[in-house]
Amino acid sequence: MPTVYITRKAHFNAAHRLHNPDKDDAWNEATYGKCNHANWHGHNYDLEVTIAGEPHPETGYVMDLGRLKRIIREAIIEPCDHRNLNMDVPFLKGIIPSAENLVVAFWQQLEPHITEARLVSVRLWETERNVAEYRGH
Amino acid sequence: MPTVYITRKAHFNAAHRLHNPDKDDAWNEATYGKCNHANWHGHNYDLEVTIAGEPHPETGYVMDLGRLKRIIREAIIEPCDHRNLNMDVPFLKGIIPSAENLVVAFWQQLEPHITEARLVSVRLWETERNVAEYRGH
Amino acid sequence: MPTVYITRKAHFNAAHRLHNPDKDDAWNEATYGKCNHANWHGHNYDLEVTIAGEPHPETGYVMDLGRLKRIIREAIIEPCDHRNLNMDVPFLKGIIPSAENLVVAFWQQLEPHITEARLVSVRLWETERNVAEYRGH
Amino acid sequence: MPTVYITRKAHFNAAHRLHNPDKDDAWNEATYGKCNHANWHGHNYDLEVTIAGEPHPETGYVMDLGRLKRIIREAIIEPCDHRNLNMDVPFLKGIIPSAENLVVAFWQQLEPHITEARLVSVRLWETERNVAEYRGH
Amino acid sequence: MPTVYITRKAHFNAAHRLHNPDKDDAWNEATYGKCNHANWHGHNYDLEVTIAGEPHPETGYVMDLGRLKRIIREAIIEPCDHRNLNMDVPFLKGIIPSAENLVVAFWQQLEPHITEARLVSVRLWETERNVAEYRGH
Amino acid sequence: MPTVYITRKAHFNAAHRLHNPDKDDAWNEATYGKCNHANWHGHNYDLEVTIAGEPHPETGYVMDLGRLKRIIREAIIEPCDHRNLNMDVPFLKGIIPSAENLVVAFWQQLEPHITEARLVSVRLWETERNVAEYRGH
Repeated sequence: MPTVYITRKAHFNAAHRLHNPDKDDAWNEATYGKCNHANWHGHNYDLEVTIAGEPHPETGYVMDLGRLKRIIREAIIEPCDHRNLNMDVPFLKGIIPSAENLVVAFWQQLEPHITEARLVSVRLWETERNVAEYRGH
Repeated sequence: MPTVYITRKAHFNAAHRLHNPDKDDAWNEATYGKCNHANWHGHNYDLEVTIAGEPHPETGYVMDLGRLKRIIREAIIEPCDHRNLNMDVPFLKGIIPSAENLVVAFWQQLEPHITEARLVSVRLWETERNVAEYRGH
Repeated sequence: MPTVYITRKAHFNAAHRLHNPDKDDAWNEATYGKCNHANWHGHNYDLEVTIAGEPHPETGYVMDLGRLKRIIREAIIEPCDHRNLNMDVPFLKGIIPSAENLVVAFWQQLEPHITEARLVSVRLWETERNVAEYRGH
Repeated sequence: MPTVYITRKAHFNAAHRLHNPDKDDAWNEATYGKCNHANWHGHNYDLEVTIAGEPHPETGYVMDLGRLKRIIREAIIEPCDHRNLNMDVPFLKGIIPSAENLVVAFWQQLEPHITEARLVSVRLWETERNVAEYRGH
Repeated sequence: MPTVYITRKAHFNAAHRLHNPDKDDAWNEATYGKCNHANWHGHNYDLEVTIAGEPHPETGYVMDLGRLKRIIREAIIEPCDHRNLNMDVPFLKGIIPSAENLVVAFWQQLEPHITEARLVSVRLWETERNVAEYRGH
Repeated sequence: MPTVYITRKAHFNAAHRLHNPDKDDAWNEATYGKCNHANWHGHNYDLEVTIAGEPHPETGYVMDLGRLKRIIREAIIEPCDHRNLNMDVPFLKGIIPSAENLVVAFWQQLEPHITEARLVSVRLWETERNVAEYRGH
């Protein structure tokens, strides 16, 4: 049976700031530059979630995409959309919201819910020029 | 010698409907929702075909892209473009035209013609938010 | 007071066919070519609706975009999405669903609902290469 | 002599919040919904500035695009990029940063610097689905 | 009867160089910078041609788009694609190939052929960030 | 520790021509067609560079993206932008500038500079429809 990969895109807008509270201001400014700005900045984040599995012979689906869309919405979009990633999202508490750390945290939120297929990639576009991806290991 | 991956994009417009004729209407409605609508709906499908091989020292080409374009056109675009994927395409007879099933069927159409390189991926964008990919196994 | 133009995008997928039932098959085939194919084809339609007005001093809004989104959804997306534009849409009965005729029909559906601003443009992308626009006159 | 329109795109990331400080929380919540969230949210803003004029016979330019790029950078991008539009931008003080109000404010910043051509449009994409435009009157 | 605007996109790749042969090297270097580089550079040009007219009651078309596509191909794409805009295109002889001058020259090539509708805009994207438009006056 | 993949995009415009100087004109014309045109053509090249590594616990970064941007600029963009890939770029001397050969050459330019992470992919879009990728082996 063939393995097919399905990618679903989603979108959210959020404020964030790169800042390590264990470090002083000079370290943060030197490390993060304008991304450390105290009054926040923000992004239109584009999220791509890829799952893999065998298409079911009766449905032709690897997984019901409506269900995948709801999982992404409940696990990621609702807690993050129009929010402050440093302050408002319970599962990001204590995490510096770099794109790298976000894709790892998003993977951990999504994976327990995707039972009928295998999660293989979480990609996050922070801008049109920067993308981070986590593949689970 | 290095292996280089070449992706060529193509495009077609088609009508389709998700419907399993072995199941009753209630099952189809519950499984496919609005994608089961009796009078069809349609998409602008974007197709990405990736091949791999070593660039030939005399040409710098893994494969002549004009030839790849013609293979894609003859194997996929001409039979599918401005057609009904459930009714009109000989190689899709008996196949529920989900994106998953389409990428597997497209792979089977393309692979015998790509003799000078290795087919490694067939991706199909059904909408801007949904993509299916088959990698041949 | 300045006039500001606000554009909201929406999306739907539909089947259609270009066919004038008052003409014979030869005329239809000669006029529409593959767009006349009997078993339908379809598109991912992108719709852009532009309104104009003065930003309200208390809100900074020309019009509440959530309300505009709902008007577009109820007037256009719900009747057309995952439907057959020739067969299923009451307000398109008797209309050949060319992009030209669609933008005029969509304008007529939208305009009565946009009372707090002025409708100035309805644009419809049938493919990435073809767009039709109606400006109301 | 022909009039030619030149559009230059630019980009910035910023945090903002829709909030009218002269109104109470209930009014703000009812008017702006999630855009009123207290801890800010943010966007990748895409800006399009269009100027018009006659191409100079010696250069073929309506205006040196490098100069236009610098004007946009100094007047808009540097004060707004990676900033909080409610708190950090001097020329936005006292302005609710809706896309409507932003395009009017950006016009006022740009126009005095564009002396060799006529400013005709400032467009701002707040998301891929929402655009505001001001044409100067 | 309503007026509808139809835009058709096309694409070509070409080499060019901004250089005024009536001026010396210092003037050209100061005016055009890296766009003056002696050994050429090039672009993927995206062209948008907009026509306007009333949809014909029998066809729903302002103009047959297949015919518009052929006009654009014969008038612009075939002479310019994979060519050097300074050296190879007869209708550009003696013209500095700035985007401004190109859209005016393209208009003059297209207009005589568009007899069943009114040409209203020729837009040329030189890069994703720069666009020139000519509206015929 | 998780491995995260970071992709950074960059852009340059260049002229080129596919031509093997060891072969005669008939061979070149037969092999490359319009890409062999003597007076050059050109492209807007989009480059995507992907690196992989573990996010640093103190910064949340796999690698400072500002540093990656500078490496790409100095190694690729500055030597290639607004240049002729056959004539002007020292590290491309003797290389037929097909997309395949370019991604291998770009890899060799980039890899020595990326010391804090692992280079995993170099992708080059020659047009919107053609992409070449090299993964280092």
